Amino acid sequence: MKALVLSSGGLDSTTCLGIAVEKYGKENVVTASLFYGQKHFKELECANKVARYYGVPHYELNISSIFEFSNCSLLEHSTEKIVHESYAQQIQEIGSERINTYVPFRNGLLLSIAAAYADGLFPKEQIAIFFGGHADDAVGNVYADCTQDFVSAMNSAINIGTYKKIFIESPLINMHKAQVVKRGLELHVPYELTWSCYEGGEKQCGECGTCIDRRKAFEANGVVDPVGYEK
Amino acid sequence: MKALVLSSGGLDSTTCLGIAVEKYGKENVVTASLFYGQKHFKELECANKVARYYGVPHYELNISSIFEFSNCSLLEHSTEKIVHESYAQQIQEIGSERINTYVPFRNGLLLSIAAAYADGLFPKEQIAIFFGGHADDAVGNVYADCTQDFVSAMNSAINIGTYKKIFIESPLINMHKAQVVKRGLELHVPYELTWSCYEGGEKQCGECGTCIDRRKAFEANGVVDPVGYEK
Repeated sequence: MKALVLSSGGLDSTTCLGIAVEKYGKENVVTASLFYGQKHFKELECANKVARYYGVPHYELNISSIFEFSNCSLLEHSTEKIVHESYAQQIQEIGSERINTYVPFRNGLLLSIAAAYADGLFPKEQIAIFFGGHADDAVGNVYADCTQDFVSAMNSAINIGTYKKIFIESPLINMHKAQVVKRGLELHVPYELTWSCYEGGEKQCGECGTCIDRRKAFEANGVVDPVGYEK
Repeated sequence: MKALVLSSGGLDSTTCLGIAVEKYGKENVVTASLFYGQKHFKELECANKVARYYGVPHYELNISSIFEFSNCSLLEHSTEKIVHESYAQQIQEIGSERINTYVPFRNGLLLSIAAAYADGLFPKEQIAIFFGGHADDAVGNVYADCTQDFVSAMNSAINIGTYKKIFIESPLINMHKAQVVKRGLELHVPYELTWSCYEGGEKQCGECGTCIDRRKAFEANGVVDPVGYEK
């Protein structure tokens, strides 16, 4: 069995990497990051660092042309601003609109690319694609492509479409972010090397949706986030 | 409603385009082709020609880096040869192996990219992604990513993952290739502009899996394939 971990250099996917290495052994694990046109390269740098920390091969692909017409606020060419509020607040305000940090079908795309790419790396073996979606990203359907229903459907599509060779492992899908951090701390995941903030400042902004979630998750575990925040 | 037709310049996807234009009107239809590292550009040229014929915008994306490690016989860097036999013969010979013209999870990837890309083009509208998979491509699981089960799972993933904004239409999924041609002839699909052969010769080879299927489909309709064959 081989494992490809979709790594953004953030808290969730790095925890996934820790879990994959524990489960399958680092000699069977690789990580992959996708540059889809983000406003900054911080997360890719961190994905590189955590792969080096674990001593696993790391691959990067540029798929930014796929989002050339999208105006998602995370994209470099976007005219939208990243909202500095919690997801819960944002959902209340936008009503039936989508949250503006939703990158169109990003996770479906990442999982599909991971499956196709990993097949080339490991043509003869079963492959687990590790995906770091967790319960808090799905609450109130904030990110439709983080829900359990989405992951189940995507797993079926990948499993059927690859003659049962490849499947998704999403070990965090039922965990809240505080539980993710708890698991990661048990596994000594190097959180000091990770980056979650949507902005690309010197420090994490502390105010965007993902910063707020990350901060709370560390606090709930009685631990100070080793990365720190601007505010 | 908008429609994005995944167009390979082949018989099936061009028939899909004819169906999409009839159903939604050409002002609501675009086509997209993906260059994934094929041995030749014939099909992309044809995809361009059929888009011009119908007067619809056409988009091209290069995703060949995703297959950099794959040895699928359709890829330019592959060491494998394209087999000149019908799919039925090939399936008998390979046993539990995959057919060597299977591009790893290609259709999952194409559909995911189509969804992400189309969302950028049409941020405010429902979108149908037209996919030309048909029954003969799924017989004996020759292409696992052409089966009805695959398309259903992928449709669920796309529909859930895009907040119900995007869905797949696969009007040929229950048709044999002869029925596809029949429907296309009724719609006056410009088959003379299409290309199905896996090889990139002057004429279609007439001997690879897809040529054999195409030829039979025209014969079953009592029509000569306007493109012609080497042998």
